[in-house]
Amino acid sequence: MKILFLNGPNLNLLGQREPEKYGRTTLAEIEALIRREAKVRSVEVDFKQSNVEGELVTWIQEAKGVFDAIVINAAAYTHTSIALRDAIAAVAIPTIEIHLSNIHAREEFRHRSLLAPVCRGQISGFGAFSYILGLISAVNINE
Amino acid sequence: MKILFLNGPNLNLLGQREPEKYGRTTLAEIEALIRREAKVRSVEVDFKQSNVEGELVTWIQEAKGVFDAIVINAAAYTHTSIALRDAIAAVAIPTIEIHLSNIHAREEFRHRSLLAPVCRGQISGFGAFSYILGLISAVNINE
Amino acid sequence: MKILFLNGPNLNLLGQREPEKYGRTTLAEIEALIRREAKVRSVEVDFKQSNVEGELVTWIQEAKGVFDAIVINAAAYTHTSIALRDAIAAVAIPTIEIHLSNIHAREEFRHRSLLAPVCRGQISGFGAFSYILGLISAVNINE
Amino acid sequence: MKILFLNGPNLNLLGQREPEKYGRTTLAEIEALIRREAKVRSVEVDFKQSNVEGELVTWIQEAKGVFDAIVINAAAYTHTSIALRDAIAAVAIPTIEIHLSNIHAREEFRHRSLLAPVCRGQISGFGAFSYILGLISAVNINE
Amino acid sequence: MKILFLNGPNLNLLGQREPEKYGRTTLAEIEALIRREAKVRSVEVDFKQSNVEGELVTWIQEAKGVFDAIVINAAAYTHTSIALRDAIAAVAIPTIEIHLSNIHAREEFRHRSLLAPVCRGQISGFGAFSYILGLISAVNINE
Amino acid sequence: MKILFLNGPNLNLLGQREPEKYGRTTLAEIEALIRREAKVRSVEVDFKQSNVEGELVTWIQEAKGVFDAIVINAAAYTHTSIALRDAIAAVAIPTIEIHLSNIHAREEFRHRSLLAPVCRGQISGFGAFSYILGLISAVNINE
Amino acid sequence: MKILFLNGPNLNLLGQREPEKYGRTTLAEIEALIRREAKVRSVEVDFKQSNVEGELVTWIQEAKGVFDAIVINAAAYTHTSIALRDAIAAVAIPTIEIHLSNIHAREEFRHRSLLAPVCRGQISGFGAFSYILGLISAVNINE
Amino acid sequence: MKILFLNGPNLNLLGQREPEKYGRTTLAEIEALIRREAKVRSVEVDFKQSNVEGELVTWIQEAKGVFDAIVINAAAYTHTSIALRDAIAAVAIPTIEIHLSNIHAREEFRHRSLLAPVCRGQISGFGAFSYILGLISAVNINE
Amino acid sequence: MKILFLNGPNLNLLGQREPEKYGRTTLAEIEALIRREAKVRSVEVDFKQSNVEGELVTWIQEAKGVFDAIVINAAAYTHTSIALRDAIAAVAIPTIEIHLSNIHAREEFRHRSLLAPVCRGQISGFGAFSYILGLISAVNINE
Amino acid sequence: MKILFLNGPNLNLLGQREPEKYGRTTLAEIEALIRREAKVRSVEVDFKQSNVEGELVTWIQEAKGVFDAIVINAAAYTHTSIALRDAIAAVAIPTIEIHLSNIHAREEFRHRSLLAPVCRGQISGFGAFSYILGLISAVNINE
Amino acid sequence: MKILFLNGPNLNLLGQREPEKYGRTTLAEIEALIRREAKVRSVEVDFKQSNVEGELVTWIQEAKGVFDAIVINAAAYTHTSIALRDAIAAVAIPTIEIHLSNIHAREEFRHRSLLAPVCRGQISGFGAFSYILGLISAVNINE
Amino acid sequence: MKILFLNGPNLNLLGQREPEKYGRTTLAEIEALIRREAKVRSVEVDFKQSNVEGELVTWIQEAKGVFDAIVINAAAYTHTSIALRDAIAAVAIPTIEIHLSNIHAREEFRHRSLLAPVCRGQISGFGAFSYILGLISAVNINE
Repeated sequence: MKILFLNGPNLNLLGQREPEKYGRTTLAEIEALIRREAKVRSVEVDFKQSNVEGELVTWIQEAKGVFDAIVINAAAYTHTSIALRDAIAAVAIPTIEIHLSNIHAREEFRHRSLLAPVCRGQISGFGAFSYILGLISAVNINE
Repeated sequence: MKILFLNGPNLNLLGQREPEKYGRTTLAEIEALIRREAKVRSVEVDFKQSNVEGELVTWIQEAKGVFDAIVINAAAYTHTSIALRDAIAAVAIPTIEIHLSNIHAREEFRHRSLLAPVCRGQISGFGAFSYILGLISAVNINE
Repeated sequence: MKILFLNGPNLNLLGQREPEKYGRTTLAEIEALIRREAKVRSVEVDFKQSNVEGELVTWIQEAKGVFDAIVINAAAYTHTSIALRDAIAAVAIPTIEIHLSNIHAREEFRHRSLLAPVCRGQISGFGAFSYILGLISAVNINE
Repeated sequence: MKILFLNGPNLNLLGQREPEKYGRTTLAEIEALIRREAKVRSVEVDFKQSNVEGELVTWIQEAKGVFDAIVINAAAYTHTSIALRDAIAAVAIPTIEIHLSNIHAREEFRHRSLLAPVCRGQISGFGAFSYILGLISAVNINE
Repeated sequence: MKILFLNGPNLNLLGQREPEKYGRTTLAEIEALIRREAKVRSVEVDFKQSNVEGELVTWIQEAKGVFDAIVINAAAYTHTSIALRDAIAAVAIPTIEIHLSNIHAREEFRHRSLLAPVCRGQISGFGAFSYILGLISAVNINE
Repeated sequence: MKILFLNGPNLNLLGQREPEKYGRTTLAEIEALIRREAKVRSVEVDFKQSNVEGELVTWIQEAKGVFDAIVINAAAYTHTSIALRDAIAAVAIPTIEIHLSNIHAREEFRHRSLLAPVCRGQISGFGAFSYILGLISAVNINE
Repeated sequence: MKILFLNGPNLNLLGQREPEKYGRTTLAEIEALIRREAKVRSVEVDFKQSNVEGELVTWIQEAKGVFDAIVINAAAYTHTSIALRDAIAAVAIPTIEIHLSNIHAREEFRHRSLLAPVCRGQISGFGAFSYILGLISAVNINE
Repeated sequence: MKILFLNGPNLNLLGQREPEKYGRTTLAEIEALIRREAKVRSVEVDFKQSNVEGELVTWIQEAKGVFDAIVINAAAYTHTSIALRDAIAAVAIPTIEIHLSNIHAREEFRHRSLLAPVCRGQISGFGAFSYILGLISAVNINE
Repeated sequence: MKILFLNGPNLNLLGQREPEKYGRTTLAEIEALIRREAKVRSVEVDFKQSNVEGELVTWIQEAKGVFDAIVINAAAYTHTSIALRDAIAAVAIPTIEIHLSNIHAREEFRHRSLLAPVCRGQISGFGAFSYILGLISAVNINE
Repeated sequence: MKILFLNGPNLNLLGQREPEKYGRTTLAEIEALIRREAKVRSVEVDFKQSNVEGELVTWIQEAKGVFDAIVINAAAYTHTSIALRDAIAAVAIPTIEIHLSNIHAREEFRHRSLLAPVCRGQISGFGAFSYILGLISAVNINE
Repeated sequence: MKILFLNGPNLNLLGQREPEKYGRTTLAEIEALIRREAKVRSVEVDFKQSNVEGELVTWIQEAKGVFDAIVINAAAYTHTSIALRDAIAAVAIPTIEIHLSNIHAREEFRHRSLLAPVCRGQISGFGAFSYILGLISAVNINE
Repeated sequence: MKILFLNGPNLNLLGQREPEKYGRTTLAEIEALIRREAKVRSVEVDFKQSNVEGELVTWIQEAKGVFDAIVINAAAYTHTSIALRDAIAAVAIPTIEIHLSNIHAREEFRHRSLLAPVCRGQISGFGAFSYILGLISAVNINE
């Protein structure tokens, strides 16, 4: 099984960026954690980040036929990108939406996810642990 | 560690009720699954269901000092009950909100959760597996 | 054929409660009327009232396999209860929504029925006679 | 007793038009049905259809002093015609609003009836049987 | 100078229709009044009424090159007819909008006039006297 | 008969202020015109202007028992002053609302008049001639 | 004189629940306070709390003919319960709505009270002292 | 192949009506153009205009079994007529919606088309050339 | 202790103004009543009224260092004045908002108070007795 | 004459992506079709696709002085990109907006085009044939 | 060159009023600062403050022909005063809107400025330094 | 001191693009102007432009530890980019938002800035001079 982890804008700043909101773990540490947990489960993972909406769209497109599931933390693009939504719908790979903070407990404009209606499920609010939950649910996606 | 699983209205019908939307597993089977998984993790669980909003409120109140975490699938009351929200805020036990179906992919009126702003996180869309993810995240709530 | 008549909050006050709006007939008189009309049509009926949302939910659940149709005057819960809506959808018994007063001619917040989208039809504005129309349409529900 | 049945735009297509939504009975068959049921009840009826809003307005005006009740299925004009509403209010003949399909279970823009606030009651969702219910309630309008 | 007075749906019922709201004067009496007042001012008038939106549209079109001003009481169509608005804009004859009742003091949906933005001015709330004011302002339209 | 003409903020600038929108006649010229027309009709008038909302409120209060009608061009306060509305309702003198420009053809926020629901009628869009129409309708207010 | 004090969901937690928002006084202490103050004024009081909407509805119904006034702190149900509103309107006992915190200074969804339109008045924001003010105003309700 | 061209209210004024917005070509000239272009493509066309909503509805109904496609410029009724929408849905003839001006670049209330959801496609903004594009797309509708 | 009572626009008309809505007591009588009740409680009071928003703002500013509490019935300005809200927030004197009528039971636009979020509490609906309740709560403001 | 065809995000997936919605023709096949049709009309075309909003913006900027018209299918960016709108307005090249599916018949958020107000016209709903219609209208843009 | 600085309600409290939001500099200190900076630039300034909306309106009117530019901090009236907007539009003196705090980062109701559409520009969020920026931009207004 | 000037989409077209709206100065001329003014103030500046949202995000991220302030004209992205907002919040460098035109005087959708709540202040409407004001306020940001 191969799982693609995609990270949206500003997630490369993780650990430095408003740590009281997003925690002190860096994205590199999360990647290491996920790679470790994936190995335990005999799952192959790829882990990418981009600040460019179009690049994330392209990565989703290229995942077709390569990955069995996508775990995506689209960050700010969650709320503004119909292009990402269309890409997920187009490739038809089971996709899980994750968020570090509980987006439903934040500003009004972060409550609505444009991606949710084309994703299998949404996990939000568990900090770095949201990635682990994303991995576990991806592994069990076809059960 | 002790975790309380609370289930809202109509979840007692699980398995029979619109199986294409909610799956074929009954609530009793989910309870058995959770008890098994909890035992593996040496965690004590209680598992309850009610159709009455006020009864759910009372159970949350009584959880104070007894349980370390609550995992709640409030079903329809997720979207209409300020009383449940106030109860969760009042007892201040870490609470995780779960849903069988992906509420953000359904009718507009199911997108908004009145409970979310007072919960740690939200997991939605993984069918019976949402309960397992709820259990795992509750166990790791203080990490 | 067996038909369940369900009555929501405050309908037990019928006859005393704002008679200029709801008429002077009591709920007991309506029940008697319905039982009489049902006998004429060789139909069995049950007739219940509750102020508790969760109790109405439970009665709908218990109707499964027992009743052929439900006629419900959910009163105030018409406009606020997603739990009742989910219960009706779950049991999949043909359900007819009735109202004493014409809800579309009253306050804005009484215009929207949360139950309507899962009911067969809606009858509103004929006072006690709405129950007779509900009975007649239930009897003819499969024609 | 004399009752006027009015039918709005496209109802002349009944039976051919989207039968899964509106049933296979034609308007002529409904008229025959209503005339038969009316005779049983010793009630005189007239039965008309028009695609022109203004013509329906005129027929309502001309009903004054001639008919004791109006049963109207205004179809699309239900949601857009203040002129029909004003006509009904002007003639002050008891009027009953009926619909074949359950308008509250369809598109958002069909939920609101501009006529409802000036009608006695509303019956919606029982197919051709809505006309029978309309007839019965018209006959009992002054009880 | 020639002025066209146009009257929309239900105005033919004037005097009988809800007199507490619209007064007891009939449309024929208003026409007589206007013809008398017009004669005093050496103005020619035409005075028409229709319940059909499209007929009113056609009359406005035919006014081009014949009338110097239009005084229109579009009644219900004031709030729903873009066709009337487009007709007024198309013929470019100075047009004055009048209303018997004060539409801004009535139901919310009567506050907005679709015609106002293409009319010179609006007079509303003076009963039959609104027609006199309409006549006077039409006579003075180019001052 | 005594009629009070009240003018709201910035009307003292009339003639200089955006003449393409409000015309070139000054407020003094309008006052002269009104005094002349009033004399013809044997009506006494007072004519006042203020930029202060509270002062206009006070003048309305003081009109009680002194004036038989008020003609008010409240300008900007038309859309923002509940205080003026309450004053008009409190003194219960027949009041006519006038506007130089057609407020319903301008910016969205000028469409709603807070005063309209407590005034007899509204005249808008006839430039200085709106004052004449206001005078005429005030004189005929009790017909 | 007999006054019924009704308390809605979560008020039984008073004193423990978010004391910075609701104060440190328990509901038992408030009851004692009210009984003391009532005795001083020779007024009989009853004092009840429930988490169940339907139970509160029933208590209001049973108050008819027994109590002269109701003082209600409906807590969360203030904003969601049309059933409570209908109950208050049905029994027609003078009812006073009270709140510990100033609901108009809190989250948007707590600003609107569904009960207010059928209550005599509303007192909000004075902590436990709101109950005293409720008592005083109930005693003076018919002055 | 037979194609019906339908034209809504005020289109008979084309060429005279606000030419800066709608161009100087008359409807007769457009009809001639379309007949010429149709002949080139060996397509039979009919070309009609009406100001009456109900007449347009009737023409759509009568097109059934006679025409293979409809090209409709419903003008003002585009935004207000559910009756036209229901007629198009009822006859199930492939229908193409056209507009002279770019309706999405005009007033807010012209952005929404009630017909669009039941039409194959929409062409808007090309002046008289929109008719040619409508013809071409109708000819190719089943490719 | 010194308490300032402030009264907004039109309250000087009290007793004459719509007595069925605001009662028959004049503002002078209320002032006398408050002075009497204040004396009983050994509290000094000042009592002022103005129709001018800016004057009320100035009085609040001047209260700083002089008064221990403000009781304000801002009348119409309650719903439109951000300036009053800013003044109350600026002086930081405990302020109590009162209303004669129950504003939450009146027109929609009177439901929202711009002042509430910066006041300690709100009392509304008890007629002249609202002033007494305001006095009592001001006296107990620091308990 | 030179025409630029621009394609937005995910259009490179055409043919594979949800074929029931977008057809089975690939973007390469559409390009070939357009190049063929262009040659017939002696028109030069360029044909580009990008998933990156900023790249599309740059291509529009570079079109200035090179192309006589732009035909753009901005896909998802149609509804979210003010940057594209500003680019089109800035270069002032006649631009035609096209869509494969009928965007007005899909999800609410696809109804509004941010580009439409700065484009000449919009063509939507004809599948690959929308490109041909775009080409034809571009060729005739100055007629 | 002569520049008028106008200050709206509560700005006279500057320095004392919520200093964490508005800074500790008093209005007198700001005036001194501005006079000093103006002298350096050989510009004459006047500097005024009022709590009364109408007085600010009058000062703007009187500025005509006397001042070359206005710098206005309308405080609360920014969001509620159409009268001020009309005054600025009427005198047609270049006007610059300034704010101490960043109004776009505060409560929703402070985001909209009614004055902005008639001002040259807006400067907001730099504390007392906003006045300096206002002065500088006024001096350069015609460059 | 080092200040970063960032320019969003289409600003590279400045001078050519709709000069009546944005002026005739090119971005290169603005850069020269700013470099000159910066030198005078002994401030180091960098000056960049991109059409790609993600590139602007990256530049903001890279500014951390290098620049003391950011002056950003995000153009179209001001209104659509949560990613830019998150970047500014993440790096916590004092940021000033500037606009050439007065965005509050333009289309409704340009009134709201997603960046404003995380910026120190906003300057809008002074053409190229907005950049000078941005520079001056950046230099004084910590005063």
